[in-house]
Amino acid sequence: MLGDLAHRATASRLMHYSGLTLKTNRIPVKTASADYSVYVGNDVFPVLRRQMASQSGRRVFVLSSAEIWALWGRRFLEAFPAGAQPTALFLPAGERCKRLAQVERLAGELAAAGADRSSLLIAFGGGIVGDLGGFLAAIYMRGIEYVQVPTTLLAQVDSSVGGKTGANLVAGKNLIGSFHHPVAVFADIGVLQTLPDRELRAGLFESVKAGIIRDAALFRFMEKNAEKILARDPAALERVIAASIRMKAEVVGKDERESGLRMILNFGHTLGHAIEAATGYRRLLHGEAIAWGMLAALRIARARGTATDAECARMERTIVAYGPLPAFRASAGRLIEAAGRDKKNRAGTRRFVLPQGIGDAVVVEDVTDAELEDAARWVLARARG
Amino acid sequence: MLGDLAHRATASRLMHYSGLTLKTNRIPVKTASADYSVYVGNDVFPVLRRQMASQSGRRVFVLSSAEIWALWGRRFLEAFPAGAQPTALFLPAGERCKRLAQVERLAGELAAAGADRSSLLIAFGGGIVGDLGGFLAAIYMRGIEYVQVPTTLLAQVDSSVGGKTGANLVAGKNLIGSFHHPVAVFADIGVLQTLPDRELRAGLFESVKAGIIRDAALFRFMEKNAEKILARDPAALERVIAASIRMKAEVVGKDERESGLRMILNFGHTLGHAIEAATGYRRLLHGEAIAWGMLAALRIARARGTATDAECARMERTIVAYGPLPAFRASAGRLIEAAGRDKKNRAGTRRFVLPQGIGDAVVVEDVTDAELEDAARWVLARARG
Repeated sequence: MLGDLAHRATASRLMHYSGLTLKTNRIPVKTASADYSVYVGNDVFPVLRRQMASQSGRRVFVLSSAEIWALWGRRFLEAFPAGAQPTALFLPAGERCKRLAQVERLAGELAAAGADRSSLLIAFGGGIVGDLGGFLAAIYMRGIEYVQVPTTLLAQVDSSVGGKTGANLVAGKNLIGSFHHPVAVFADIGVLQTLPDRELRAGLFESVKAGIIRDAALFRFMEKNAEKILARDPAALERVIAASIRMKAEVVGKDERESGLRMILNFGHTLGHAIEAATGYRRLLHGEAIAWGMLAALRIARARGTATDAECARMERTIVAYGPLPAFRASAGRLIEAAGRDKKNRAGTRRFVLPQGIGDAVVVEDVTDAELEDAARWVLARARG
Repeated sequence: MLGDLAHRATASRLMHYSGLTLKTNRIPVKTASADYSVYVGNDVFPVLRRQMASQSGRRVFVLSSAEIWALWGRRFLEAFPAGAQPTALFLPAGERCKRLAQVERLAGELAAAGADRSSLLIAFGGGIVGDLGGFLAAIYMRGIEYVQVPTTLLAQVDSSVGGKTGANLVAGKNLIGSFHHPVAVFADIGVLQTLPDRELRAGLFESVKAGIIRDAALFRFMEKNAEKILARDPAALERVIAASIRMKAEVVGKDERESGLRMILNFGHTLGHAIEAATGYRRLLHGEAIAWGMLAALRIARARGTATDAECARMERTIVAYGPLPAFRASAGRLIEAAGRDKKNRAGTRRFVLPQGIGDAVVVEDVTDAELEDAARWVLARARG
């Protein structure tokens, strides 16, 4: 659905509304095939309301979870004119429901409700709602437009930007999906008030990642202000979220399909994904597994000297400051085997992202079996709790 | 997956092999996001063989049907080096199996067999294998490359070119899908030897359509040579197939996403789709329903005078010459209702393609309820048998 003319036309329509006076950050995302904005602020619903007012004549659907809907559904619906309330669809909670069977059910509900090619879908929830909702929009009638309204920190700083959508197979997470960009993203800091503490921390690990791989200023801010950020100080959170999104938007703008630069976003992911797989996706949140994966990658970076000992120590300390990182157990063999199977690897290569100092990273394909095994054993020893 | 650099790189790799001396038509398809070739000839397997020889190092998978595999599997496998035979996956026969549950099963089989982002999928079969195989390739790991080797006339002249892939919902055909172009298409006239007569005719209706909407020379050739073509004269078939593909390639090249010109390909589809829906997709083949739909559209064109009576009579006679068009029964109300629900319609409009003489067509949105009802009743009376 990339490059779709209708898509672009509406993206422009959504962007060029007039009279925005609210204190909201607008972060542009420009890729070869898409051009849209991410709005970040303490209350972005009024911006959503203005944009929805200009969508008259088209059917609007919202995909959410029962939990988010109970907490924030009324606030969300206020963004729509009285006569143009969206039709709500729901996805049951949990990674288990991020499957094609749900996509099929939801597509059937869209069809039954009369959704056509000009309809708009809004994904209002965490990463699972966003990924599956984006995928539903990507394949319903070969692609309809969608908007992301992410309600977890992880979804705001990571999955809602960049156009990756997907569903899981039994064989692995996100093994099916599409690249399909939203026409706009609204990251509201207000909805984070109800986010469980553990999920907040899991999202912050991705922001620490953003700092380590590409934004030294963000890293230093997070290094110095962990207490304030963890206490959900709105200004501090806004700074972290906006900087994380800016970093991702810039990287995705330069490499939409992950053929080069975008790979650095996978810092912590080679072993992080393996840890998720080896623990059956039950023990750790995604961000927590990535935090463990980052510590493992730092172990390799330190041994190779791609970053100095002092820099590695600062990066490790800052990751740990946003913990606790939950304990887990797994066999080293399984972890190593899973790291080799990661879908980010092309035929036979084993790809690692290693920091080069703070705010810079490099993708390498020459990590040896011995290095991988050492990092895996080190993480397992440390994670035993 | 459109615009994917890897995709383009391989498309070029596939095209620029050297030393082709076989009598094979190569028809280029160039769109904003893809650039590939369709090979048409009495024996295109040697061309496939040459291209596969240059794919060493990547895993190749083939999706087929048991029926086609039994008839042509051995011939197909000869195209592969001894040490690089593709892994075969199978789709059960019938429109009923063009569903997400099969996509999920097949994606699981790909994952279990170790398919990665650099793997290649070949769809070797009729339209259902091609559409579902293309969709599987579109969403497996967010898109892998695929090749079409269509084995029915309908798939050769229509569905294998243009990048539309899809699956059915209970609510309707092709309600989910992606735009995902193949990296090459091989239309072999030899495999049509085993095609049932009724399916040959159903495919030829689409070629008559190609002549009516855009290629007067093709129309005249089909008007004069029905007997020879229906007798499967290889030279006559080759001319019809190559001209039909050329027409489609040209239209898709100018309007990849069906925002304008490509809509003319839907001549006969507004009522054709409605007839398929109203008869539960069981009574008629797709091409047969389109033939009835073309006759209905000609009824409207004749009444409006967009084509002369004499031209309309020639077009009707030529459609009927490739019949018989099987009888069917349906209620006029259901047909009209289904015509309004067609997914090709954007919010509220009713879109018809009407011939303007022979070899030219126009898309209109102002067909009245009365015109639609007259056309529906006329077709139903004629189809009663």
